[in-house]
Amino acid sequence: MLEGYRGLALDSLSSINADIGDQIEIIKNDMRLKGILMPSYSSTDDIVVIKLDNGYNIGISIKNAKIQLLQKRTQKYKNEEEKNLGKSEIKIISTGGTIVSKIEYETGAVRPALSAEEIIQFMPEINNLAKISAEILFSILSENMKPEYWTKIINSVKKAFDEGNKGVVIAHGTDTMAYTASALAFALKLSGPVILVGSQRSSDRPSSDSAINLYSSVLLAKEAPFGEVVINMHGESSDTYTIAHRGVKVRKMHSSRRDAFQSVNDIPLAKVLWQDNKVQLLRSDYIPKRDETEIVNSKFSDKVFLLKYYPGFSSDFLDYLIENKKVLGIIIEGTGLGHVSTELVDHIKKATKDGIFVGMTTQCLFGRVNMNVYTTGRLLQQAGVTPLEDMLPEVALVKLMWILGHETDQEKIKTLMLTNIAGEINPRHSIDLFPRWNYV
Amino acid sequence: MLEGYRGLALDSLSSINADIGDQIEIIKNDMRLKGILMPSYSSTDDIVVIKLDNGYNIGISIKNAKIQLLQKRTQKYKNEEEKNLGKSEIKIISTGGTIVSKIEYETGAVRPALSAEEIIQFMPEINNLAKISAEILFSILSENMKPEYWTKIINSVKKAFDEGNKGVVIAHGTDTMAYTASALAFALKLSGPVILVGSQRSSDRPSSDSAINLYSSVLLAKEAPFGEVVINMHGESSDTYTIAHRGVKVRKMHSSRRDAFQSVNDIPLAKVLWQDNKVQLLRSDYIPKRDETEIVNSKFSDKVFLLKYYPGFSSDFLDYLIENKKVLGIIIEGTGLGHVSTELVDHIKKATKDGIFVGMTTQCLFGRVNMNVYTTGRLLQQAGVTPLEDMLPEVALVKLMWILGHETDQEKIKTLMLTNIAGEINPRHSIDLFPRWNYV
Repeated sequence: MLEGYRGLALDSLSSINADIGDQIEIIKNDMRLKGILMPSYSSTDDIVVIKLDNGYNIGISIKNAKIQLLQKRTQKYKNEEEKNLGKSEIKIISTGGTIVSKIEYETGAVRPALSAEEIIQFMPEINNLAKISAEILFSILSENMKPEYWTKIINSVKKAFDEGNKGVVIAHGTDTMAYTASALAFALKLSGPVILVGSQRSSDRPSSDSAINLYSSVLLAKEAPFGEVVINMHGESSDTYTIAHRGVKVRKMHSSRRDAFQSVNDIPLAKVLWQDNKVQLLRSDYIPKRDETEIVNSKFSDKVFLLKYYPGFSSDFLDYLIENKKVLGIIIEGTGLGHVSTELVDHIKKATKDGIFVGMTTQCLFGRVNMNVYTTGRLLQQAGVTPLEDMLPEVALVKLMWILGHETDQEKIKTLMLTNIAGEINPRHSIDLFPRWNYV
Repeated sequence: MLEGYRGLALDSLSSINADIGDQIEIIKNDMRLKGILMPSYSSTDDIVVIKLDNGYNIGISIKNAKIQLLQKRTQKYKNEEEKNLGKSEIKIISTGGTIVSKIEYETGAVRPALSAEEIIQFMPEINNLAKISAEILFSILSENMKPEYWTKIINSVKKAFDEGNKGVVIAHGTDTMAYTASALAFALKLSGPVILVGSQRSSDRPSSDSAINLYSSVLLAKEAPFGEVVINMHGESSDTYTIAHRGVKVRKMHSSRRDAFQSVNDIPLAKVLWQDNKVQLLRSDYIPKRDETEIVNSKFSDKVFLLKYYPGFSSDFLDYLIENKKVLGIIIEGTGLGHVSTELVDHIKKATKDGIFVGMTTQCLFGRVNMNVYTTGRLLQQAGVTPLEDMLPEVALVKLMWILGHETDQEKIKTLMLTNIAGEINPRHSIDLFPRWNYV
């Protein structure tokens, strides 16, 4: 996973099978430069970034350069990782993101952790909670997350439990953390808790939430009685507690606040009072741990489109998706109770007749779709649209990707979409699920 | 505007220039049926619905039928509307939606009001507040709203103020009311308040919010000191007050609650205590009334796409928008601080080089984009993406439609997008703009 590389640099690095963290050598003119391959975010596609022995990062154009692999990262850290194998209680799987990034004071650059030791160093106190092992699965910013990487994480979680761990903590960028949480929740039946954790402020900032989020996630992974995937992040704007949100009922609702993650249409599973080393359950109807962790299916189809409807939306886009793009499923983020313009009805009917699953969610986010109240809703149902209850659009999308990864029968797809697999459908809403706005 | 009609019925009705509310005659076999043309939501496209003199609605297939126009609705109601011309203080412009729909107990069908009298009958007490006139501009469900209809509403608002009205109330379906509010806010410089109002429960239900919302909107239109477009709806789950949200800072945040509309990243303008006939301002920095109402520009381009990014999103779709669809602008609803996968950077660069405006908003909804924090943001900016501050995705979309309706110069488009025209950019966020979730 060559994070950040494109074009020429990506091709060159791929050709020698190099990965982030590997030791490589670049030979250019009469110069030989040895170093650790770093992620790159250069605006030109010919730059390779390596970390030299003296600690500095350097970007080198590989036009007219030779490049070779000296040592794989995995070899280097293999021994120490093997030491821990089968002995730890909690495993930290790192996928990248702000929480495992550190600033190098020599260079000013922020870089992801490249070893298990480095991760534990972010918050060494976690060693007092449990025997920890850590694995660098990959080091990407979460906006670059893809369905195929979800599969890798799922396999890694399964392996961690099979090795005897009681809980798993996954370090992840916050941008797409909720999508990954859903993917894991659908694909895994768990023998212990899986805690996704990130950070909204990097560890070099005084207001960083990295340490507390990581500490309370390890605590939760050890103490939680559930076999569910949760996102555990700051619960309010100060540092007193974190909240563990059910992975299929949570959204990043703020671009920068530390308490950005909030449950939508549901109550979170737990509050973690990290100062008291205490997990306080907020509900008792969680999914219990199973004897063994099982992967139901770990493939995701990317032939799915999330379509947010708006006035002026042209039906051409729908036709393109159906005819040229050959999608297998469309999740519509409709208006209100689940509507789009009646002008789209015939186009949608064509899609469903062609065997494309079309599901309806609401761009209101809060509340449930109800396509029996207004005529537009009834017409859309007659055209084959499936109303998806109170599922969040993003969750419905990931669920459909997962179902289409292993199912082709139209009726089964629909039945599965409407089956409450991981708590993604909340059949009963209470009045207090809607947040209180502050201006009253 | 032949709401709900498609295919054969739409073609036939268009060919005789018929409109909803007109008297038409259908001749089929030996039968002659005279009645008022009603909106239709039939699942087949050959059905025309008319209201017979006896009060019943009937749907007739117009296959092998002749159809003719007897009298235009506008003629019928012209006299009584002219009576009011120039004399009213507040004008109600009806575009349709639940708030102006009533159930016909004979047939059980819900239908929109077809005359000014009918609108006032929903809440006759408004006559005690001010001299009211009413106009049926059209009768559509708001999911069928289009940019070209916004133009009609804008012209109608201008006319209402020119006729001497002090304020305007627009009855509108709630589904796309926030989009319409933005369109009006950008296109109009106002001599009085414009209050968009809808209803989440129809007037036949005991919990209906129609009457209170309409009453308090007329009160607000009369009393408000501002020249702004607002959405005025229930402020909490009971009937004590309504809240007037700035039109460019509001979203429908719940599919069914009566207090579904909430300000995002901003404080509303006013609270309306209808029982005391009192308007309580929540801020003093509103846009004051001007001497005259002016239309800045009332055209909207529909060559714009709102793209919600998600993991697994394929760059093919971007290429399609750029190459086949020839869009002029794209608003991205990115992740977090304003990100998409770095794999899209080169595709986006191509778009901006081709003269397509690409603006970035966040799917978090709350908070501001900041594309200087992470490398992905910086890369996207280098590729020509414009970060759009704390603008809501839907508002940014409508603003871009409006700008592209009258501007072609690349630099001017960018400058206008970043100019705070109607309060759509809030330069300073306070901590209390984020709602309180109830599970702490």
